[in-house]
Amino acid sequence: MIALTGDIGGTRIKLAVVRDGQIIARQIEPALADQRWPDRLPALAATWRALCHEANIELATVAGLGVGFPSLVDAARGRILDEWGKFPGCAGFDFGAWARDTLGLPLALDNDARAALIGEWRQGAGRGSNDVVMVTLGTGIGVGVVMQGRVLRGAHGQAGTLGGHLTVRYGGRPCICGNVGCAEAEASTAVLRELAALRPEFATSALARETELDYASVFQLAEAGDACALALRDHSLGVWSATIVNLIHAYDPERVIVGGGIMRSSAHILPALQHYVNTHAHTAWGRVQLVAGELGDDAALLGGAWLVNEKNFPNASA
Amino acid sequence: MIALTGDIGGTRIKLAVVRDGQIIARQIEPALADQRWPDRLPALAATWRALCHEANIELATVAGLGVGFPSLVDAARGRILDEWGKFPGCAGFDFGAWARDTLGLPLALDNDARAALIGEWRQGAGRGSNDVVMVTLGTGIGVGVVMQGRVLRGAHGQAGTLGGHLTVRYGGRPCICGNVGCAEAEASTAVLRELAALRPEFATSALARETELDYASVFQLAEAGDACALALRDHSLGVWSATIVNLIHAYDPERVIVGGGIMRSSAHILPALQHYVNTHAHTAWGRVQLVAGELGDDAALLGGAWLVNEKNFPNASA
Repeated sequence: MIALTGDIGGTRIKLAVVRDGQIIARQIEPALADQRWPDRLPALAATWRALCHEANIELATVAGLGVGFPSLVDAARGRILDEWGKFPGCAGFDFGAWARDTLGLPLALDNDARAALIGEWRQGAGRGSNDVVMVTLGTGIGVGVVMQGRVLRGAHGQAGTLGGHLTVRYGGRPCICGNVGCAEAEASTAVLRELAALRPEFATSALARETELDYASVFQLAEAGDACALALRDHSLGVWSATIVNLIHAYDPERVIVGGGIMRSSAHILPALQHYVNTHAHTAWGRVQLVAGELGDDAALLGGAWLVNEKNFPNASA
Repeated sequence: MIALTGDIGGTRIKLAVVRDGQIIARQIEPALADQRWPDRLPALAATWRALCHEANIELATVAGLGVGFPSLVDAARGRILDEWGKFPGCAGFDFGAWARDTLGLPLALDNDARAALIGEWRQGAGRGSNDVVMVTLGTGIGVGVVMQGRVLRGAHGQAGTLGGHLTVRYGGRPCICGNVGCAEAEASTAVLRELAALRPEFATSALARETELDYASVFQLAEAGDACALALRDHSLGVWSATIVNLIHAYDPERVIVGGGIMRSSAHILPALQHYVNTHAHTAWGRVQLVAGELGDDAALLGGAWLVNEKNFPNASA
């Protein structure tokens, strides 16, 4: 089966041609997420066409377009449900009609973190398990869930997806989602500079001199004994750990996959999370295993092909 | 269909005969939860037999025994998975074999909050919805979940059940479950006296003179302006609200049923929870409706009959 896939992010957009679970052509572009979604799409169509040309694929042989989008999504009806300050005009836009009219392809749309989960579940770190949660630590915190062999979507497409928006600190920081004390508001790249600047140790910290503050710097400087970096590191690890315990308590998985850009520092992260989970999660049956994602940036691109596959479009069995 | 049912609590045990969704005989007993579970059971068997006699029911016409137990439960195999300081010896005890040998009945066992949810979903405040979460506020905090018409149980029977053990206050109070900052450790009757005693206003509060401190007193005294009661009330409402937002974000329900003993003060509770949910839950599709349980103490007793029904035991269709 051949699918065109896309992983739409707030920073980068990744597009691919996937054949039988292999990416045979890919392109990474800046997101330009302040553009209106209907205006952003023509350039993406052009890239998908160019990738097909490069891979020597006729559009007529493609089963469908599988896209992970950074928003709540109604996967059944192929609609983006709301906007999170990215790609204005995306909510309610008839993306399915666009795909049909522009590329002649049926659309399989889902949340981006859910698409990544599906990729890892089918082809990566979740292989062989029917009960998997994936947490994507990056600009925001995305979550996807498989329970007893079924991708969890819920009545309105929201289930699992909002795992980064479980309150872990009641009365804590306001979050972009409208809630307070969410993991995403307490420890993510989106709020890292703000979090750092709130610390009294910030003024004298090497972090204050970083132009693009990211978690890689935080972990490095924490190792070197920087007080602000240490405090940020420990707070963030605690918030992520509490979030993972919540996801374990909510969804009863046997494995939790941790992925996303922040996991480039995985050696600083996974052992701490596993230790907290071992000592805090209530799992009478045994221990939940934490593992790093295996597919990196490819997870949602490969997951997109599984979304197409799941839809049983006319060409999807080819 | 006729079922014997039981709602095993840490304070009281309720036993019943249910015929076609109606309780036709019932008995409430003190829990005596410090007794070993195998030693507690003979008296329960005697009560179930007496209830059958009272209702003029032959045991041979009963479809099964449906029991809600206050612990994690493997519903598929009919085993209690762990002990929470109640009924020692319950975990691992072959309750199914006991029911067969003692009453000649097959056992349908589940978590008590899940049994209450099933009762409310089928016959009470959840009727007509396929996506329902029920939160039971009482000595502890129990949760049960129906998603898209299926009772959520998960790979190890834990899903949904641990909703009172989602961290809402990272770094907060240690919980009996092994986690910290769970709703049950932050705001439940089990910890109410301890919570009150920690407040500086406690010494001069009327709460200090209550012999059995409960939330009914807290709400009453808060109305009267007692500073300690006010602080406890507001903290508890906040913790329950944050928990309900987490359950909404986790399970995507359209309705949340709030039940349990604390809801005897529902007029003080529901409007506050609904307001918080309206302003904090991210639900692009619309508003989640909070409703009070309708079945009160009968919820898990009626749910027990649905558990028997669900199992398709030989007599269950009669």
